[in-house]
Amino acid sequence: MKNVLVILPLSDEQKARLEALGRDCAFTYTSEAAVTGEQIRAANIILGNPAPGQIRASENLEFLQLAASGADGYVKPGVLKEGTKLCSSTGAYGQAVSEHAFALTWALVKKLYLYRDDQTKAVWGDHGMVGSLRGATVAVVGLGDIGLQYARLAHAVGAHVIGLKRRMSACPEGVDELCLTDELDKVLPRADVVCSFLPGTASTFHLFNDERFALMKPTAFFVNCGRGTAIDNEALCRALRNGVIAAAAADVMEIEPLPADNPLWKQPNMLITPHISGGFHLPATLENIVEISFSNFAAWLKGEPLRNEIDFTTGYKK
Amino acid sequence: MKNVLVILPLSDEQKARLEALGRDCAFTYTSEAAVTGEQIRAANIILGNPAPGQIRASENLEFLQLAASGADGYVKPGVLKEGTKLCSSTGAYGQAVSEHAFALTWALVKKLYLYRDDQTKAVWGDHGMVGSLRGATVAVVGLGDIGLQYARLAHAVGAHVIGLKRRMSACPEGVDELCLTDELDKVLPRADVVCSFLPGTASTFHLFNDERFALMKPTAFFVNCGRGTAIDNEALCRALRNGVIAAAAADVMEIEPLPADNPLWKQPNMLITPHISGGFHLPATLENIVEISFSNFAAWLKGEPLRNEIDFTTGYKK
Repeated sequence: MKNVLVILPLSDEQKARLEALGRDCAFTYTSEAAVTGEQIRAANIILGNPAPGQIRASENLEFLQLAASGADGYVKPGVLKEGTKLCSSTGAYGQAVSEHAFALTWALVKKLYLYRDDQTKAVWGDHGMVGSLRGATVAVVGLGDIGLQYARLAHAVGAHVIGLKRRMSACPEGVDELCLTDELDKVLPRADVVCSFLPGTASTFHLFNDERFALMKPTAFFVNCGRGTAIDNEALCRALRNGVIAAAAADVMEIEPLPADNPLWKQPNMLITPHISGGFHLPATLENIVEISFSNFAAWLKGEPLRNEIDFTTGYKK
Repeated sequence: MKNVLVILPLSDEQKARLEALGRDCAFTYTSEAAVTGEQIRAANIILGNPAPGQIRASENLEFLQLAASGADGYVKPGVLKEGTKLCSSTGAYGQAVSEHAFALTWALVKKLYLYRDDQTKAVWGDHGMVGSLRGATVAVVGLGDIGLQYARLAHAVGAHVIGLKRRMSACPEGVDELCLTDELDKVLPRADVVCSFLPGTASTFHLFNDERFALMKPTAFFVNCGRGTAIDNEALCRALRNGVIAAAAADVMEIEPLPADNPLWKQPNMLITPHISGGFHLPATLENIVEISFSNFAAWLKGEPLRNEIDFTTGYKK
């Protein structure tokens, strides 16, 4: 008998479906806010996001199915004991995060954040010329599920989309040009919008630094809805202050929550949302997580191959 | 010899092209800010937007080619003498205004305006669930060039688009269902987003009133990028305050500039931009106006049919 700890806000109907998949298992249901270290260390299987610091290489934990798309907090030494299977929910957040990034892009392009600031002061003023995504060159850095869905949204409204990924493949539908992430420095000078969906790994750390912002057009917009560590925050702040790029938006930060005294908060051409693009904010996301988690739970019990299994050396799925 | 007054920011190349079309004409170039009543009343032909109050039924004016999409200020008695041909630049603003309305819609759906307000206070907070345009029902009220381009943007990102227009026709590409504006009351209860592109005419005055907001879903978003007079501002404010609808955005107001003491400025679920979606804020718009104006100028000189000629009884193009 396996102890299954479920840290997902499941409906009664979803719980019944899950229990039908694991008839010999004992199920405990809790939430991210209520879960205890004791529950985590008693579990053989966890569905959801336990705090990495509470796992402490639990001897009991055999399979951890995250609700998160990024597994960066769980591949660090000492979090999971060797042999624990780790799977992410990559694919669940494609719609929610890509749409949020798309909304942020339009807010930058049409200067909506400046007009909102004016509104709070009852000012009827004019901030001049605006841009468009029609005919714009949009570089999508990180072409997993989220990046690809963003690429398709941008393509659908008339942008020329350059997708950048680690390994070459056939050019996916909705992407006009496919490049390797290694070719980033050749792509940046061409882009009107640069949108990063890079995960937080050793190889993406501070990929966007002073040198890379300097390669972008002074009219370029930069958007980050991947992980905050891929951006050198201080370099971004300098680029915005000195007009190296036009404006930026981010849903993720190197340190979250962003400290109240960080100058990015008050940088006028910076638009910040507090890591809310994912989570369960869009109903479709939870449905996707449930679908991935349940099918992996059933597969793990049967010893079948798993979806989204994480390679501990790269932090990406295998 | 005709006196041609040009109130458009033309390049030298564009001026040369215009003068080649009217070799016998005398051209005067000015701007909306600098144009005088004397210049307006001396002109036989005007390209651009003279202030209606300065025309005073000028005996000299034979042809007025507006840079504006809406002709509402010019069809009122006493502005133009009988027989003056009046044409709008309907079609020139399709891209600029539809994209602005699209950006506003996404800002509402993803609550970006609330997060911007938090940002100004360095607050990292969570405003809960968000919506999507994928699978949403979007009612586009007024299906001229602007409305149709908005419909296509919404359709391209997965919305079910209901287009409403005055006269039945074949269902245009990008519209999933076509209805008559007379059927509005049947469509409003179904819509997740209602976007008005209605012009300011007698028949659209206060079309959106208490009764019509009450027909919408409490989760509905309302967007206005047509003319402000189609909306009863006080009814909108009541609907937002009382949760009759979820949120609204508008680029146009019944009175512009919106007076500083109007409660809409401070209504938290209202997003306001100051009639900046059109104008010359998107470079493509001026190119479109030049194209329409020059071809109509040449046609008028030759006595050929004009594009976008306004019917003084309806305020719409003939």
